[in-house]
Amino acid sequence: MSHTIEHKTKLLGRIRRIKGQAEAVERALEAEIGCADVLMLVASMRGALNGLTAELMEEHIRHHVVNPDSEPDSERARGAAELIDVVRTYLK
Amino acid sequence: MSHTIEHKTKLLGRIRRIKGQAEAVERALEAEIGCADVLMLVASMRGALNGLTAELMEEHIRHHVVNPDSEPDSERARGAAELIDVVRTYLK
Amino acid sequence: MSHTIEHKTKLLGRIRRIKGQAEAVERALEAEIGCADVLMLVASMRGALNGLTAELMEEHIRHHVVNPDSEPDSERARGAAELIDVVRTYLK
Amino acid sequence: MSHTIEHKTKLLGRIRRIKGQAEAVERALEAEIGCADVLMLVASMRGALNGLTAELMEEHIRHHVVNPDSEPDSERARGAAELIDVVRTYLK
Repeated sequence: MSHTIEHKTKLLGRIRRIKGQAEAVERALEAEIGCADVLMLVASMRGALNGLTAELMEEHIRHHVVNPDSEPDSERARGAAELIDVVRTYLK
Repeated sequence: MSHTIEHKTKLLGRIRRIKGQAEAVERALEAEIGCADVLMLVASMRGALNGLTAELMEEHIRHHVVNPDSEPDSERARGAAELIDVVRTYLK
Repeated sequence: MSHTIEHKTKLLGRIRRIKGQAEAVERALEAEIGCADVLMLVASMRGALNGLTAELMEEHIRHHVVNPDSEPDSERARGAAELIDVVRTYLK
Repeated sequence: MSHTIEHKTKLLGRIRRIKGQAEAVERALEAEIGCADVLMLVASMRGALNGLTAELMEEHIRHHVVNPDSEPDSERARGAAELIDVVRTYLK
């Protein structure tokens, strides 16, 4: 994944936020706050993990399969753009 | 969640493993290993988060709604046991 | 599930819509429309199935475990109401 | 999706089974069998829908983006093969 610095920074920001959420869940369990509140924290974490997954799949498609923005074969470019849309829909 | 010490320890073990997995993803992104490998790490993390969610929901049902093992009303006991099974099936 | 007629009608409406979506996917596959369009139909179906699941779990909690609107034990009533919220959050 | 006849038949078989499962859920709701049993039927349906989704995504990648079995560019072939593995892992 030797992609742009900008993209790497963005992905690192996402995983660090998820790590921070895991730490919040850990503190909540230690403090014995209600299960329902812990479950809501875990639900946010799951949403953030889906967001990271969609971003990583898009990166993979663009950099290791077909980049719809620079692909000269227009059929493949369209196929890759549609695939990115599908991935986003499934993981949103 | 003032449950048993044993249970608290188990839940803390789960979230600490998930935090460790988040750190592994962070290191993988920093080291620029392949997207596909990072995605497999993220998939394991998602599985572990589902496991924690199922455990927390079961805890919540047992301690804040109806505990099938100690409930005198047998209909409610069965309803709660079935609900725990359903939650496990959906999150496995 | 000997619940209200109103509720049964609502649940039947949901599953019949999902069956209709399955028929639309079948026709799309027969007509050989693009994979990406079929995948979008399947994504809507998945959303509708999650909606039905949340509704059925809420029904189960209310009628076979604890109904937060009629439970005299206020702790249990709160626990069941929180559980319904959690289920909705996870399946929305 | 002008793919092989064999593949079309396989995909049609999958969606027809899912339609059959929807009909079983409809009959179960009409017969007022227990919520928990209906939820288990719905869980199987969700599994079958994930299987169909994985199959359709693989089809899309192979026929509209890059087919790892016939792609001359070995980097792209590997990227597409990895992507198919990732999709299967996420939807299994």
